[in-house]
Amino acid sequence: MAVAKDDAEAIRAANDRFYRAFEKLDMEAMVGVWAQTDYVKCIHPGWGLLAGWEAVRASWELIFRNTGEITFTLTDVQVEFRGPLGWVTLTENILSHLEGRVAATSVLATNVFERTGGGWRLIHHHASHVMMPPARGASDTIH
Amino acid sequence: MAVAKDDAEAIRAANDRFYRAFEKLDMEAMVGVWAQTDYVKCIHPGWGLLAGWEAVRASWELIFRNTGEITFTLTDVQVEFRGPLGWVTLTENILSHLEGRVAATSVLATNVFERTGGGWRLIHHHASHVMMPPARGASDTIH
Repeated sequence: MAVAKDDAEAIRAANDRFYRAFEKLDMEAMVGVWAQTDYVKCIHPGWGLLAGWEAVRASWELIFRNTGEITFTLTDVQVEFRGPLGWVTLTENILSHLEGRVAATSVLATNVFERTGGGWRLIHHHASHVMMPPARGASDTIH
Repeated sequence: MAVAKDDAEAIRAANDRFYRAFEKLDMEAMVGVWAQTDYVKCIHPGWGLLAGWEAVRASWELIFRNTGEITFTLTDVQVEFRGPLGWVTLTENILSHLEGRVAATSVLATNVFERTGGGWRLIHHHASHVMMPPARGASDTIH
């Protein structure tokens, strides 16, 4: 059980590093978060699929160049894992400042991590805007 | 390698069963696709997170009641797996008929499957609308 608890905490820490790198617009830290392989995939909110490390890396460079101040408050963080894979679901509550205006958005993310020799690395990020408020059950969501 | 090939094919078949159940609006088939556990999660396009089998099941009942004719053409299907987990990314090219009108939409999906005694079962579905056309690289997407 100690191992399981350690795994959950290590995956949660890797997940936190991802959002800290994003907040700091720190490309070196973002590179360290990801596994740099041909099978990593990334879906930014509303974007098409980016497959392979080169496409994913290029997307972060572009996003970091075009982002001002941004802060993430993570809620509903849930960590699961089986063997060499862990996955995290969470809500990214985002405050961004651009040209003097503040925007608040809510994004749902699925982050998949793989255990490597260098620790847990991100191999899949799927993020999507929430158009409907969070719900406890499906009927709450539509009615 | 034979085992690996079998796993990939079995995961792909489980993924196909999910979309056939959706097309047929067949609740019994949809129930059979999913692991019925408290850790399954489902994010329909634009929705908040649904966690746990009861919430996920209720969402499909609601969607099936409110859906007319719908067909899925799957493209960019990519299957990965490690041990007891497999994950599939794909584009759902959706044609739906509602009140005499035809709507075409494009949705990106991440589907995670777990190997169980009863075969590969869906434990995580994250789907999001594509607002920008698919791109080979990040720079193509934004420019």
